[in-house]
Amino acid sequence: MQTSWAPSMFEQLGLIGCGLMGGSFALALKRAGLVKRVVGYSKSPSTTERARQMGVIDVEAPSALLAVSGADIVLLAVPVSATEATFKAIRHLVTPNTLIMDVGSTKRDVVDAARRVLRDHVGCFVPAHPITGKEVSGVEHADANLYAGKQVILTPIERTFTVQLMKATNLWTALGCNVIKMSPQAHDAAYAAVSHLPHLIAFALMNGIAGQDHGKEYLALAGPGFRDFSRIAASDPKMWRDILIANREELLEQSRIFQQTLQSLEQLISGGAGDQLEERIQQASHTRANWRISSPKPQK
Amino acid sequence: MQTSWAPSMFEQLGLIGCGLMGGSFALALKRAGLVKRVVGYSKSPSTTERARQMGVIDVEAPSALLAVSGADIVLLAVPVSATEATFKAIRHLVTPNTLIMDVGSTKRDVVDAARRVLRDHVGCFVPAHPITGKEVSGVEHADANLYAGKQVILTPIERTFTVQLMKATNLWTALGCNVIKMSPQAHDAAYAAVSHLPHLIAFALMNGIAGQDHGKEYLALAGPGFRDFSRIAASDPKMWRDILIANREELLEQSRIFQQTLQSLEQLISGGAGDQLEERIQQASHTRANWRISSPKPQK
Repeated sequence: MQTSWAPSMFEQLGLIGCGLMGGSFALALKRAGLVKRVVGYSKSPSTTERARQMGVIDVEAPSALLAVSGADIVLLAVPVSATEATFKAIRHLVTPNTLIMDVGSTKRDVVDAARRVLRDHVGCFVPAHPITGKEVSGVEHADANLYAGKQVILTPIERTFTVQLMKATNLWTALGCNVIKMSPQAHDAAYAAVSHLPHLIAFALMNGIAGQDHGKEYLALAGPGFRDFSRIAASDPKMWRDILIANREELLEQSRIFQQTLQSLEQLISGGAGDQLEERIQQASHTRANWRISSPKPQK
Repeated sequence: MQTSWAPSMFEQLGLIGCGLMGGSFALALKRAGLVKRVVGYSKSPSTTERARQMGVIDVEAPSALLAVSGADIVLLAVPVSATEATFKAIRHLVTPNTLIMDVGSTKRDVVDAARRVLRDHVGCFVPAHPITGKEVSGVEHADANLYAGKQVILTPIERTFTVQLMKATNLWTALGCNVIKMSPQAHDAAYAAVSHLPHLIAFALMNGIAGQDHGKEYLALAGPGFRDFSRIAASDPKMWRDILIANREELLEQSRIFQQTLQSLEQLISGGAGDQLEERIQQASHTRANWRISSPKPQK
C-alpha cells in the first residue's frame, strides 16, 4: 500500500517483554521492514531463548538495560505494574533520540511512572495502548497480524517530544492501525467503561456460577451467547490484576453506575413492569445493534 | 447419515409463529424430509404471507386454531408470554395423537400454562428449548441450519406421554441436535445462570455506558473484547422482556449471587489486594479456558 509519508526505519528495537504483545510487535515491525535488528529481554531467560529460536528477536539481552543499549526504539511489553521498575532499569541508556513506548491497558499510572523515573527524558516516552490481544499469552502465540486493522490509543502529555509522537504515529499507521490521541485521563475513563468493567463482570460471573452447588452442570448447558459473553473471562490473571488495580478509581465508578443500572432493571423485573422493561431493553438493543468497531481509515 | 431408529414422518406441521425460530424449524423439517406440509400462522398477516412466499410454509392459516386443524405436529414459536393464550386458541383441535412443542427460553411458566389450559391433553405437550438463536429476528432470517449441532433441552413432566417424548427426541436428533432431558425447574435454574443473567448484565452495561455524558465517545473506542461481551445486548426486546419476567425468581437469585461476587472482587481491588485478586481471576480464567460448548454425540 502506498503511503503519503515515509515511516521511520529503525536500526534497533529494544524489546523488553517477549510475550504475546511484544513478540507480535517485533514480528510486525520486521515484516513491514521497519527495523533492522531486534534485541530482546524477558524476565524469564527461557522465554527470551524461545523468542530467539522462533525468530521473534535476533539477539538475547541478559538485562533490560542491555536490550536498550544501542536501540533507537524501545518497547516495554511488561505487566503495567512492572513499568516503573523497568524505566528504572533502563533510564541510564535512554537518549533524547530514543523512542520509548509501552502497550499497557492503563495510561495514568504508566505516565506517572515515566514522569517520576525518566525525568528529563520523559519526552521520549509515547504511551500507547493497542486495542487488541488474545486470551492466550506467551511468545508462542505471537502473531505479525495482531495489530493490523486495530485501534491504537496514544496518550502524549504536554512534555512529550513532537518528533517522538510523530514517529510513533507513523509507525503504528504503517502497521495498519487506526491511531487515536487522547489524554491519559480520558483514556483511563473510557477503557474503565468499555474494557476493564466488562472483564471484571466476566470474572465475577464465572466465579459466581462455578461456586454454586450445581455450577458445573449449569456451565455444561451454556450456549453460544454465553460463549461470547464470557470469552474475556479467560484473560491473563496477572495482567488483569494489574489493570484492575491500576485503574481502580475509574473502574469502581463505572461499576457503581453499572450496578445502579442493573438494580433499576431488577426492580422492573420483580415488579413485572413489562412495558418499561421492554423500553430499557430496546435502548440497549438499539445501541448495540448500531455499534461497530472503529476501523482504520483507508490510507492514501 | 444412517440412524439406528426411524424418526417419525409427519403429515402436517402446524406452525404458530413464523419468525426466526419457527421458520427455521419448518425449513429444517422440510429439508430432512420429516414433514409433508407446513400450515403456518403468525399474528401479523404480512409475516405469514412472507413466510409462504419464501417457501417456509406451504399454506397460510387465518388463525392459530386453523393452523392446528389436521396437524399431527404443532410448534409454538411465539414469545413465552403468548403461550397460554395460544394454548387456549388451539385446545379444541388438539387430539391425543398431536405432538405439541414450544421453543421458549423458560419452561416452568410454559408448563404451568399447559397444565392449566390443555388439561387432559397436557401429555401431548413436550416443552422444548433449543439453545440457539440470532440477534436478528423475523422470518427473513430463517435458516434450515439454525438447529444443527445445537443442544435442545426437553423438560417433560410426569404426565407427558412417553410416545410424544420419544417422537420429540427422535425429531430433534434427526435435525442434528444433542437432546438433553431435565425438569422444568432444573432448566430454569440453569438458564437463569448461564443465559438470562448474562443478557440482563449486557443490557445493563449498554444502558449504563450509553447514559453517561461521554458514553458515545467511550463506545467508539471499544474493541473486540467488548464486541463479543456485548453481542447479546442486541437481542430481541419483546422476547427478552418476557423471559426475564417469566423466570424472575431464579434470575434475581442468580443476580444476587453475581453482585455478591462482584462486590467481593471490588473490595480486593479497592484494597489493592493483588495476590488475592489474581487468585480469583485465575479461578475465573481457568474455568473459562476449560469450558466448551457441549456438542451432539456422533450418531451411529
